[in-house]
Amino acid sequence: MADMTRDSEVSDSLSSGRACRPGYRVERDLLGKLEIPADALWGVHTQRAIENFRISGTPIGAFEELVRALVIVKQAAARANRALGHLDVVRATAIDEACTEILNDGRYRDHFVVDAMQGGAGTSTNMNANEVIANVALEMSGKFRGDYAALHPNDHVNMAQSTNDAYPTALRLAALLAIDPLVAALARLAAGLDVKAAEFASILKVGRTQLRDAVPMTLGQEFGAFKSTIEAEIRSLKDQSAVFLQVNLGGTAVGTGLNTDPRYRQAVTAELARLTGRPMVSAADLIEATSDVGAFTLFSGVLKRLALKLSKIASDLRLLSSGPRAGLGEIVLPAVQAGSSIMPGKINPVIPEVVNQVAYLVAGHDVTITMCADGGQLQLNPFEPMIGYCLLSSMKLLTSAVDALQSKCVGGIEADIARCQYLSENNIGVVTALVPVLGYDVCSTIAKRALAEHRKVGDLVLEEDLLSRERLMEILRHEALTRPNLGGAAG
Amino acid sequence: MADMTRDSEVSDSLSSGRACRPGYRVERDLLGKLEIPADALWGVHTQRAIENFRISGTPIGAFEELVRALVIVKQAAARANRALGHLDVVRATAIDEACTEILNDGRYRDHFVVDAMQGGAGTSTNMNANEVIANVALEMSGKFRGDYAALHPNDHVNMAQSTNDAYPTALRLAALLAIDPLVAALARLAAGLDVKAAEFASILKVGRTQLRDAVPMTLGQEFGAFKSTIEAEIRSLKDQSAVFLQVNLGGTAVGTGLNTDPRYRQAVTAELARLTGRPMVSAADLIEATSDVGAFTLFSGVLKRLALKLSKIASDLRLLSSGPRAGLGEIVLPAVQAGSSIMPGKINPVIPEVVNQVAYLVAGHDVTITMCADGGQLQLNPFEPMIGYCLLSSMKLLTSAVDALQSKCVGGIEADIARCQYLSENNIGVVTALVPVLGYDVCSTIAKRALAEHRKVGDLVLEEDLLSRERLMEILRHEALTRPNLGGAAG
Amino acid sequence: MADMTRDSEVSDSLSSGRACRPGYRVERDLLGKLEIPADALWGVHTQRAIENFRISGTPIGAFEELVRALVIVKQAAARANRALGHLDVVRATAIDEACTEILNDGRYRDHFVVDAMQGGAGTSTNMNANEVIANVALEMSGKFRGDYAALHPNDHVNMAQSTNDAYPTALRLAALLAIDPLVAALARLAAGLDVKAAEFASILKVGRTQLRDAVPMTLGQEFGAFKSTIEAEIRSLKDQSAVFLQVNLGGTAVGTGLNTDPRYRQAVTAELARLTGRPMVSAADLIEATSDVGAFTLFSGVLKRLALKLSKIASDLRLLSSGPRAGLGEIVLPAVQAGSSIMPGKINPVIPEVVNQVAYLVAGHDVTITMCADGGQLQLNPFEPMIGYCLLSSMKLLTSAVDALQSKCVGGIEADIARCQYLSENNIGVVTALVPVLGYDVCSTIAKRALAEHRKVGDLVLEEDLLSRERLMEILRHEALTRPNLGGAAG
Amino acid sequence: MADMTRDSEVSDSLSSGRACRPGYRVERDLLGKLEIPADALWGVHTQRAIENFRISGTPIGAFEELVRALVIVKQAAARANRALGHLDVVRATAIDEACTEILNDGRYRDHFVVDAMQGGAGTSTNMNANEVIANVALEMSGKFRGDYAALHPNDHVNMAQSTNDAYPTALRLAALLAIDPLVAALARLAAGLDVKAAEFASILKVGRTQLRDAVPMTLGQEFGAFKSTIEAEIRSLKDQSAVFLQVNLGGTAVGTGLNTDPRYRQAVTAELARLTGRPMVSAADLIEATSDVGAFTLFSGVLKRLALKLSKIASDLRLLSSGPRAGLGEIVLPAVQAGSSIMPGKINPVIPEVVNQVAYLVAGHDVTITMCADGGQLQLNPFEPMIGYCLLSSMKLLTSAVDALQSKCVGGIEADIARCQYLSENNIGVVTALVPVLGYDVCSTIAKRALAEHRKVGDLVLEEDLLSRERLMEILRHEALTRPNLGGAAG
Repeated sequence: MADMTRDSEVSDSLSSGRACRPGYRVERDLLGKLEIPADALWGVHTQRAIENFRISGTPIGAFEELVRALVIVKQAAARANRALGHLDVVRATAIDEACTEILNDGRYRDHFVVDAMQGGAGTSTNMNANEVIANVALEMSGKFRGDYAALHPNDHVNMAQSTNDAYPTALRLAALLAIDPLVAALARLAAGLDVKAAEFASILKVGRTQLRDAVPMTLGQEFGAFKSTIEAEIRSLKDQSAVFLQVNLGGTAVGTGLNTDPRYRQAVTAELARLTGRPMVSAADLIEATSDVGAFTLFSGVLKRLALKLSKIASDLRLLSSGPRAGLGEIVLPAVQAGSSIMPGKINPVIPEVVNQVAYLVAGHDVTITMCADGGQLQLNPFEPMIGYCLLSSMKLLTSAVDALQSKCVGGIEADIARCQYLSENNIGVVTALVPVLGYDVCSTIAKRALAEHRKVGDLVLEEDLLSRERLMEILRHEALTRPNLGGAAG
Repeated sequence: MADMTRDSEVSDSLSSGRACRPGYRVERDLLGKLEIPADALWGVHTQRAIENFRISGTPIGAFEELVRALVIVKQAAARANRALGHLDVVRATAIDEACTEILNDGRYRDHFVVDAMQGGAGTSTNMNANEVIANVALEMSGKFRGDYAALHPNDHVNMAQSTNDAYPTALRLAALLAIDPLVAALARLAAGLDVKAAEFASILKVGRTQLRDAVPMTLGQEFGAFKSTIEAEIRSLKDQSAVFLQVNLGGTAVGTGLNTDPRYRQAVTAELARLTGRPMVSAADLIEATSDVGAFTLFSGVLKRLALKLSKIASDLRLLSSGPRAGLGEIVLPAVQAGSSIMPGKINPVIPEVVNQVAYLVAGHDVTITMCADGGQLQLNPFEPMIGYCLLSSMKLLTSAVDALQSKCVGGIEADIARCQYLSENNIGVVTALVPVLGYDVCSTIAKRALAEHRKVGDLVLEEDLLSRERLMEILRHEALTRPNLGGAAG
Repeated sequence: MADMTRDSEVSDSLSSGRACRPGYRVERDLLGKLEIPADALWGVHTQRAIENFRISGTPIGAFEELVRALVIVKQAAARANRALGHLDVVRATAIDEACTEILNDGRYRDHFVVDAMQGGAGTSTNMNANEVIANVALEMSGKFRGDYAALHPNDHVNMAQSTNDAYPTALRLAALLAIDPLVAALARLAAGLDVKAAEFASILKVGRTQLRDAVPMTLGQEFGAFKSTIEAEIRSLKDQSAVFLQVNLGGTAVGTGLNTDPRYRQAVTAELARLTGRPMVSAADLIEATSDVGAFTLFSGVLKRLALKLSKIASDLRLLSSGPRAGLGEIVLPAVQAGSSIMPGKINPVIPEVVNQVAYLVAGHDVTITMCADGGQLQLNPFEPMIGYCLLSSMKLLTSAVDALQSKCVGGIEADIARCQYLSENNIGVVTALVPVLGYDVCSTIAKRALAEHRKVGDLVLEEDLLSRERLMEILRHEALTRPNLGGAAG
Repeated sequence: MADMTRDSEVSDSLSSGRACRPGYRVERDLLGKLEIPADALWGVHTQRAIENFRISGTPIGAFEELVRALVIVKQAAARANRALGHLDVVRATAIDEACTEILNDGRYRDHFVVDAMQGGAGTSTNMNANEVIANVALEMSGKFRGDYAALHPNDHVNMAQSTNDAYPTALRLAALLAIDPLVAALARLAAGLDVKAAEFASILKVGRTQLRDAVPMTLGQEFGAFKSTIEAEIRSLKDQSAVFLQVNLGGTAVGTGLNTDPRYRQAVTAELARLTGRPMVSAADLIEATSDVGAFTLFSGVLKRLALKLSKIASDLRLLSSGPRAGLGEIVLPAVQAGSSIMPGKINPVIPEVVNQVAYLVAGHDVTITMCADGGQLQLNPFEPMIGYCLLSSMKLLTSAVDALQSKCVGGIEADIARCQYLSENNIGVVTALVPVLGYDVCSTIAKRALAEHRKVGDLVLEEDLLSRERLMEILRHEALTRPNLGGAAG
């Protein structure tokens, strides 16, 4: 097998390729011959898929992480096959080097052309990768594109693989790769929120539950909670991403490992771990792992939780900044564009608004993934391409939205201290802090009177001589109102 | 067939039923004998289903409309079969009268005991109806329960029917029956909103887009829009309910009409129309109609739209009533219960909150229905029981929520006129009305200054001598601000 | 206003634009100056939006129908404003002709560059349209891009409009435009299914309910049901699209019509109807219409129903063609590409599979639209851009999927007549047709024996001398088995 | 505070209760007096909620785990308050003992009567618990129901709590309690599947991908994969349930801990851990924890993943058992009821069908929870009651469905060995195993011929003298076909 030109019968069949329109070469498969653009690095299977799937217009090459992941899987397989003696060194090295080349040069992504929305359980994506790698390897070896006798997309690049193990593994790896920039963006957002939490630490404001004035808190506590919840999501993404570390490489078509060497499964997985620097492991039951898409449905739920937290923050920012005069108006978002063609001077919270919308798309994608998962039958789920599309799209969109949220909005938020103070001073909810001293019933009476007579709670307490001014001030001082305030260690 | 006691072999087989535990009788089916509570009006198929489906604990009898609809379908079939000469008058009349009895006495619903969540595409529900009707007819004829030789649940009550046409038809009819109380509740709500629209007609307030102060409007216009949108939903429910008028009765098992008289399809549908007073018609393609659940998926979307509108109104009411001091505070919702165990005097918008939640459950049910619809295969959708559960639950819940919204909330809403006026007077958005006179750029300058200097737009216009007080007042009078205000017919 | 160069102050402010980097011009807004590529037809508001919304990478120009709809709305407004005397003839004509130019030349779509996922309730999309139209008009008038003193995007192109009425109207019109190609594709599919229904009309096969062998039918009936259901969807799309005919043009910012002529609302709507040839009408309550997105939520449900029907057909085709040997195997789908890199000769149902996946994405989009709808507050729903993205994407994808389904799959389906016949002859379900003659109990016994002894129903009936061969053949002849077969008119 | 009769003024106010209709007592709150059934253990706040929320008809008492959890939280609080010296020993002991009584006697659940669908963020549920516990404690102390001067629902039972920390904590605990029976049911199912995997270990069958015949596997491997995936879910439920261990007790109204002792937060959490035997901990940021519902959204996703796996198994069982003659027919599900009123002898897969449907409801609930989560604003999510309803309903339904799946279906599944063997022997997919020996192209030719000529792959290989019978048999022996089969360690 060391001589890359030996498979002469394939060469012969391909030689007919030269009799075609200028600018094209011909390849063939079971269905017959097909013209392929001469400068294309893909082959006949990809070309058929291009023509079969004119659906979304978005090629798989639009998902950089997926392309990288596919290539890494192929590289791992080539190395494992070489190590086990099933693939000759010349071909294995050619494949290995082609993979490195593709990973290093983003322009090859233009040759990952199959529509991201496709039937066939990812076969066309896998074929596209096999063919591009084969042709890059051929070119780097000084041979012609399409000279598959020398190096074959299926026999050599795809050796010991089926779409059914190579593609799901690549999807998992792509997801892992896409988590990194998302986590980085979230870390910047958390840091930005922390800056604001510190900046607003001493600004007393009205806490609100069910949109009703409740007990006091600080604006810093509110932004601190945003920060805490984003930090929790960073941990969640990292922890839950472990679900992608289990791969089914070596299972081939249905998970039985047919046409593999018994040592291959561990060898290729170890190679994948080495290439990615991640603790990839072989799933315990490859038959289960081949049909199961639970990792994707779970992680989609994890992304949805993140999306909902971002949406909650976005909604809160819009609400807290509402106004400028007939809203809550406790904070001011940075103006990034004019808000209206008809209303001069109007500025809208456009960045939080786009965050909400992205969150809702992620939630929609979760339902799509749910239905794709439910449609899986017997030994394989044919709908993984859409699962991948939704999952990777969601991750890209969330990353963009988080970046925009921090750089275009959170970073420039200012507090309206006077407004916070004005609302706080009039908050009837501070009566809660008097309950331990005056009792629930007396406090209820004060609260009712305050509301009905448009008075402040403190003024009524003094007017009724219920407490001395000193005692009242002590109870109602900011520090006491925004933390545990009773007896015990605090006494 | 006129002699109801002729089928002696069945009678024989059932006579063995007397040798069983006290308080039980015995029936048998293909799987063997089974004990049934002696006072139960259901039979062996129902009893098996009870034991097979211990899922939700909610019996089909909890859905009054479904029970009524099933009985009406059986009544229509009995009449059609009698008219066509396939069912003898004695049995047909017995079935007919039993159906009337069940429709008139709600207590029979306690015998519709199969779990609402069931496998089998509704067969158990259909069997339950067949058996209860048969036994009621037997009792009314002075015979024993279970004496199916005299009157058989399948041979006579179910004559010329399959679950696959009787059950979907009953579900459609149940939906039609459930629409009436929902529409009535919505009509009460629309009337209630109309009262408020009139009551608040002259209260000027700040219109808000994207939570930002925009141009003026009246509180009456705002409530009028609520009314308009509910009225639109009433029309929508009525119009779209037509989707349920097409039924597949006569198609039997797969829609081919096997084992029916060619005249039966039209006869039974006409009977159904007569009994219900609704223009029920036979679907054009009974094979399509037997497998298709498009009527349910569509109407679920119609209910979801209603739910979203109710949710929008609920959210707006919560937002407009937020406060009492640190919110928008333009309206006051009636207090219906104490809002907090820890915060004296706090009142929450609990009724709108439950409306939101019901709306979200309806939206969730829509997804469940979607997945049930997608799971249908070949000649039948086996998941219609869950479709029915979700659809009928959604309708019941929406009816309850709408009733609560009107009776416990909307009816008692009051405006905070002073608050509306205060916010209106300070609204920078009125500058928009000056654009046709002063131009966009001058107006932008005024808007900016007003915001920065905490001034009113009108004061700045007068200070700068841009308009006379009379002209300014004319432009900014309420009537002009809340309707088309330029030249032409208005000039 | 007839002199397009009169607004010299704007001209001055823009003249500063010449002092900038080569290849750029400068425009300014409330936030200051901004460089814009010199050859861009968009302006400052668009440029800010480009920088604010780096989210999906998909520009609004990717949605041809939306661009066309926006331009038509602007054209209608210009004509109405001219007719009412508010816009001078020179500017009105310039706008009008620019709109025609853009509608006629697809290359202008490259200047609709704002990200389709954007905050701001569509303001950026509206601004983008205003600016491109203004600059095209300026160029066609021999003036410079950005010379807004001569023709202003907001003052003139956007005259009497707010984003809040122009954009939702354009979205509705875009949806209407996108329905046409979808309906055309569905009509081709229905025709293709009809051809197959006729071709397969005499092929008897086993009907299946709940995946269990049921009573007989013909393969033609099965494909006829597919055709019927698609025809129902064509009617549904056409009927339900009426929901988009009601528009809120003339409502401006919140629906009150501020800054419009009282005659404008009807004038512009009539103009829109004239330009589109569609019976567009003004919504009854413009305040309600401005905040309401019910048309979109409803139609999304209509699209979901279509998607589910397509998914059902796709799933049935996959199931019916399963095999080639260990499946149902009643039909053969055309081979369009090799199915496996590891299994020689395997062919997969890739076209139906992509149809399923598109359907699931549409269902996910419906949830996204639901959440966007729920997020609307008070006088406007800020999430219409995502609603539009999902709705228009769903329509495009469905159109592509339907085209693929017909051209790559349905058109080439062949029946495996021998297989259908073999399964039919062995179908125990034919026993159902004997029930009216032999009774349910005898039939049950035969059915049980047939299954247990691997016999045919007919052989057992003859063996037991239950019927003569002639009578049996008469009952079991194909024509009788697949239609109403009892007494009456058929007798 | 040690004297439980001291608060005489409350006693006075309640003494008026005696002047009311027979069979009722009177209590009062801020809104006035209200009659309560004399034998009711609930009080005025519950009674108002009963009247306000006539929505679902399902009381919170229907959720046993929620009732238990509420009572345990109250017990933990009472103990912590006693330990810190804020609640006197007499009252604390009375509360403690009342809680134990309620936990031990299921009949008290009949007094948890508030509708499970309620507004108010759970306040009514919390009030219901406070009142029942107070009245049970009063009765056990020999006092009258409603004698809140002696022991007060809010002042004593609810001491140091807000609904906003007590209720979410109880929901988390309820979820933890509900996981146990679900996991137990899953363990029984996994064991049942394992039995079948062993029973079917040597039955060779056709593996299928995309519903097309693929390479061989054993029926035991297929059931083993079901077992593996259920075991994975058991681990997933256990691992992910950790999300519920973090509670916000001590945060009170908005998370600041107002009106608590600084030592209380840790004390009550430790007490909760002690009472439950679970490692409950205090959340890091109580403000974040009070508004956040991420634990519920995440776990809902975990449940949905489980539901989808169950649905996949159910769908596979239906498909594999399809027939009896015109389907795949590899397995036979136990008959549990007659399947049709019109088709004698038909048996349907009703248990798997109900499993599918429950799974789809769980997926719908996930969307409802998503929307509830998105609706949370500022310091609290008011929609937790619906979140709890959906989550706890999903868990109950899944438990029931899993129980039914094992006890009514999986336990009785039998293989049709002859059918599996027949299909295997005719499987063209075995050609895959010859690829490493004969090459892909030769194999393709054989596969094509086999399909076209209705031949077996092995026969053609022998006919063409491509391999000796011995070599062929070696390659195609079962053991080789269902596991890694190439060179290396296996050689």
